[in-house]
Amino acid sequence: MTVVAVLGAGRIGAVHARSIAAAPDAELALVVDPVPGAAEALAGAHGARAAGDAAAAFQDPAIDAVVIGSPTRYHVQHILEGVAAGKALFVEKPIDLDLARADDCIRQVGAARDRVMVGFNRRFDPSTASLRQRVRDGEIGALEQLSIVSRDPAPPPAAYLRGSGGIFKDMVIHDFDTARSLLGEIDSVAVTGQHLDPDVEDEWDAAASTLVGVGGAVCTIVTSRHCATGYDQRIEAFGPLGSLRLENQVTDGVRAYTRDSAGATGPFQNFFLERYADAYRIEMDAFLRAVRGDGPMGPGLLDGRQALAIAEAATEAARTGTRVRVQPLPVGAA
Amino acid sequence: MTVVAVLGAGRIGAVHARSIAAAPDAELALVVDPVPGAAEALAGAHGARAAGDAAAAFQDPAIDAVVIGSPTRYHVQHILEGVAAGKALFVEKPIDLDLARADDCIRQVGAARDRVMVGFNRRFDPSTASLRQRVRDGEIGALEQLSIVSRDPAPPPAAYLRGSGGIFKDMVIHDFDTARSLLGEIDSVAVTGQHLDPDVEDEWDAAASTLVGVGGAVCTIVTSRHCATGYDQRIEAFGPLGSLRLENQVTDGVRAYTRDSAGATGPFQNFFLERYADAYRIEMDAFLRAVRGDGPMGPGLLDGRQALAIAEAATEAARTGTRVRVQPLPVGAA
Amino acid sequence: MTVVAVLGAGRIGAVHARSIAAAPDAELALVVDPVPGAAEALAGAHGARAAGDAAAAFQDPAIDAVVIGSPTRYHVQHILEGVAAGKALFVEKPIDLDLARADDCIRQVGAARDRVMVGFNRRFDPSTASLRQRVRDGEIGALEQLSIVSRDPAPPPAAYLRGSGGIFKDMVIHDFDTARSLLGEIDSVAVTGQHLDPDVEDEWDAAASTLVGVGGAVCTIVTSRHCATGYDQRIEAFGPLGSLRLENQVTDGVRAYTRDSAGATGPFQNFFLERYADAYRIEMDAFLRAVRGDGPMGPGLLDGRQALAIAEAATEAARTGTRVRVQPLPVGAA
Amino acid sequence: MTVVAVLGAGRIGAVHARSIAAAPDAELALVVDPVPGAAEALAGAHGARAAGDAAAAFQDPAIDAVVIGSPTRYHVQHILEGVAAGKALFVEKPIDLDLARADDCIRQVGAARDRVMVGFNRRFDPSTASLRQRVRDGEIGALEQLSIVSRDPAPPPAAYLRGSGGIFKDMVIHDFDTARSLLGEIDSVAVTGQHLDPDVEDEWDAAASTLVGVGGAVCTIVTSRHCATGYDQRIEAFGPLGSLRLENQVTDGVRAYTRDSAGATGPFQNFFLERYADAYRIEMDAFLRAVRGDGPMGPGLLDGRQALAIAEAATEAARTGTRVRVQPLPVGAA
Repeated sequence: MTVVAVLGAGRIGAVHARSIAAAPDAELALVVDPVPGAAEALAGAHGARAAGDAAAAFQDPAIDAVVIGSPTRYHVQHILEGVAAGKALFVEKPIDLDLARADDCIRQVGAARDRVMVGFNRRFDPSTASLRQRVRDGEIGALEQLSIVSRDPAPPPAAYLRGSGGIFKDMVIHDFDTARSLLGEIDSVAVTGQHLDPDVEDEWDAAASTLVGVGGAVCTIVTSRHCATGYDQRIEAFGPLGSLRLENQVTDGVRAYTRDSAGATGPFQNFFLERYADAYRIEMDAFLRAVRGDGPMGPGLLDGRQALAIAEAATEAARTGTRVRVQPLPVGAA
Repeated sequence: MTVVAVLGAGRIGAVHARSIAAAPDAELALVVDPVPGAAEALAGAHGARAAGDAAAAFQDPAIDAVVIGSPTRYHVQHILEGVAAGKALFVEKPIDLDLARADDCIRQVGAARDRVMVGFNRRFDPSTASLRQRVRDGEIGALEQLSIVSRDPAPPPAAYLRGSGGIFKDMVIHDFDTARSLLGEIDSVAVTGQHLDPDVEDEWDAAASTLVGVGGAVCTIVTSRHCATGYDQRIEAFGPLGSLRLENQVTDGVRAYTRDSAGATGPFQNFFLERYADAYRIEMDAFLRAVRGDGPMGPGLLDGRQALAIAEAATEAARTGTRVRVQPLPVGAA
Repeated sequence: MTVVAVLGAGRIGAVHARSIAAAPDAELALVVDPVPGAAEALAGAHGARAAGDAAAAFQDPAIDAVVIGSPTRYHVQHILEGVAAGKALFVEKPIDLDLARADDCIRQVGAARDRVMVGFNRRFDPSTASLRQRVRDGEIGALEQLSIVSRDPAPPPAAYLRGSGGIFKDMVIHDFDTARSLLGEIDSVAVTGQHLDPDVEDEWDAAASTLVGVGGAVCTIVTSRHCATGYDQRIEAFGPLGSLRLENQVTDGVRAYTRDSAGATGPFQNFFLERYADAYRIEMDAFLRAVRGDGPMGPGLLDGRQALAIAEAATEAARTGTRVRVQPLPVGAA
Repeated sequence: MTVVAVLGAGRIGAVHARSIAAAPDAELALVVDPVPGAAEALAGAHGARAAGDAAAAFQDPAIDAVVIGSPTRYHVQHILEGVAAGKALFVEKPIDLDLARADDCIRQVGAARDRVMVGFNRRFDPSTASLRQRVRDGEIGALEQLSIVSRDPAPPPAAYLRGSGGIFKDMVIHDFDTARSLLGEIDSVAVTGQHLDPDVEDEWDAAASTLVGVGGAVCTIVTSRHCATGYDQRIEAFGPLGSLRLENQVTDGVRAYTRDSAGATGPFQNFFLERYADAYRIEMDAFLRAVRGDGPMGPGLLDGRQALAIAEAATEAARTGTRVRVQPLPVGAA
């Protein structure tokens, strides 16, 4: 049995807790959350203990692995404490909103970074993983053009936006990771930012980004903070032998045929918890297997760092209207 | 130049006239219709002559081929007159509403039947033809189950229905021909008739038919005289290696994505003139090529006769509630 | 906490065990299987006890609910023992292979049948449930024609087939339940049986069935024990205002575009464990809620009995070539 | 009868000739081509006269309208001669490869430009026209993001490329017109050019362009001179209320289901003659109606000029790596 603690009893903590409870050979032992009652409610439903301080997880020798679902500003601290305590760690993205601070964290973690996994959940989506594998297997030849559409159903609350780091570090970072997982390292990025919704208090709430990979392939990412039809998540990989496309998944597979229209399904799945429900479960199963030594521990801190570096470059590109180079990993950081 | 006359200046006559006018190496010379002004209007638009009597077509030695789009009750007479005049003939289905009368016509036509083509337009629909060819090429192995859905958008007027010969001879006969073109000869048929719309003054306005081919394959045909979404025309051929499906074509290829639904196109193409527009043009081109000796003349009178024989058996099966054998071609008829 | 025992540690038992382990407020306490080691393996993965005899479940007063996943021939016995012990019961379909024996069981269970749920898993498939709800809400008007396609990927082993009760009681019974859940009670059935695969030692391995509902609607069910592309599970409901269709789900949502073809996804999900994975989980959650009094307990024994009655009529119809009436519930049975 | 001459007996000339021959109330009177035998072959198939010099068309008072399908370098000359002769004119795009020369032509044509139509055939594609109309009707609210994919199946011969004016004036100009017809006037364009195929002797054979409309909406156009699956022609319009998408049309509507994949159709229609066959016919019908005064004459010379201006800006943007403003119409040109 792998004994696991979860930090953070919010929506994503509950998702991971349920995955751990259902997994054979794993046990959810502890849920930590400083909000009064939050840890108790989630722990109680799965017969686990509750605590208000992360130290309860890091200092308990019976705990093998810690899932860090705390707010972003605590990620670096929890990573460093967890590594010091010898725990296997799963941390939600991003590592931090500041690239220099992330680089510093990686340097301190050192070789222990092979015990840390970063939550780029989309990599575990079965369809995304299949597309990536088929691209790597050469099914379409060398990738030439990648087209990503990524739209959230609705903007988050203003309070969330203020601490989010902006659309590129908060939202498009997932797509930058997807682009990098398909294209390899990214050389530069150009961005046309848009501000579509006057009620959104952020610099941009939509953008068209054009990434150039080190091998010359080009990736366009069309993003928006709103999408009437739901969570819009599409990828198209194009090469000399053909293309592979990932379309949206819908809330309801029934197709309707009426006097006015044909083939309508329900709208897209509403948001990430629905769209990536399988991905979250598979991701946690992969982490638990990696903790037991039965599989690779990844994506890791370097993947998290590189996606953040693209996001920083994109932010500057949107501000300046010029193409901006992505800052490479500092010497000695990894 | 192949010189052609068209009998009947109605909707289908106009379709054939336009195809002939556009075809290279063919000339529309004459349009015949006894309704005052009808022939003149259609002929005038294409620079052809008009007449009120079919004799004008059959007796004109300059005319090579005659397209018989007259009412069904005149088909046999026009076939026999055309054959006697040495014309190549294209006749709309059915040959006649009475199987015995059709058999008698075929006997009289004799060897000249290789100069007569019957208008099973769906055989020339590119998608239907492709499905048929791929089945014949063995792509799915020996055909085991065939599922046809065939629904008209709305019932015809009561006056038309009274002379139509019933749903099987008027409407399902096309699907019987499709089944036969895919399965080979049909041994027997069972039918569950339905009367769905109280305003339709006919014995049945819907039915589920189950045909058994001489080789043991089974075909179900689900039919209705109404379909809110338009002309519903689907085929699925199933065999040990897979299946081939033909879906509906829609009025508008644009897909809409809204708050409530995703992927809706416009409704199905409204009816046969839209759905089979290409088929009618390709069919007429095939007839004109066959007249010039550049291609096969078919489907022919025997195909028309066999589809009619299945329709007669289906009518009896619906009335009696029993499985009925299809009447084979009489000795000496062909 | 609802305390649950599972009888049967096979594939379906493992599915239910994992659902119970993941469910909040439920505990998997016991797994029973007479095969040495089977119960222990499944119980161990979820921290539960193991036993070899169903009495361990029925006689333990701490156990609230029993999931009966034992072989069909023990279903009636386990239902009667469970009811006598006051347990809430979930039993896999069919109740029994013999309609008279099922009727006798229902009579003995009496009023306690509101504590028994029957495993028609497809009713809990989100898409099927949505289609059913939308039909009931009148979206397409009164249902006129229902078309079901139901094909297994490959026939089961000969040993299984010998005890299966034949294609209608073993396989098509699910579709009969679906037809009944959409159309209401079924009046009669006609069947054209086929024997497509010479290696299958059963009376029929394919069939086209035509059901007539008491209200006059017609349902066709096309079935086969093999399908190269996987588990073929489709429904189309047609009414005066339109139609609703449920298409297959595929193993891989990625669409491929090549020199030769466009839009190909992976094949259909392989079989019921994949296709109905969500349905099994939702079904078990619904059962656990019903045990706690938080929701309806159904489908029940009468639903299981009626689907079996249609299957018996279909078997006779296939043998005799005639339309057969479905045997109504005996007076006093319910 | 509208009497028409066609200049150019190549592929596109043959398409227009057949449309004119089939159209009611129009007559193809003359085909002009300096290549020996070319005009005669096309004219002969439709019973028209042949000539080697365009003067035969412009000097014949019986001819009402001239279709200019000559090489691009003769377009301006033929427009000016045709206008001087008082003919209604249909001219294939582009007006010229040089923006200044096009502006000069427009100035000379003056008010007579309401007798000249420019061949942006895609505007007449039924699906594209429907999408445009629905955007204008406000179905998705104010257009915010437009995503166009436009790929040719294979690069043209080197000789053609040398005279083509480059990928933006030759190929993407159609997409610039589509963007403009949906977004309104374009303010600026940024381009990432690619050179994917070493055998193509041109500056770029692929590109990702980002256009900004005067109202702030953004359009991305992903282009390539090759596409293994055929002619790739897609549009997606996105607004606050939803989106409208136009997918590719395929050579064969039959879907195949096999052991390995599901739902594969034939590849995309091969190229523009297939994909826009209906558009070419509808375009010519619209021109003939406009000549008779029964409909609007458009798109016109100003539309051709604006698409060319965007193409010139895109060429510069690709070369410089900067965002380039589109040159507005000179004062007095229109």
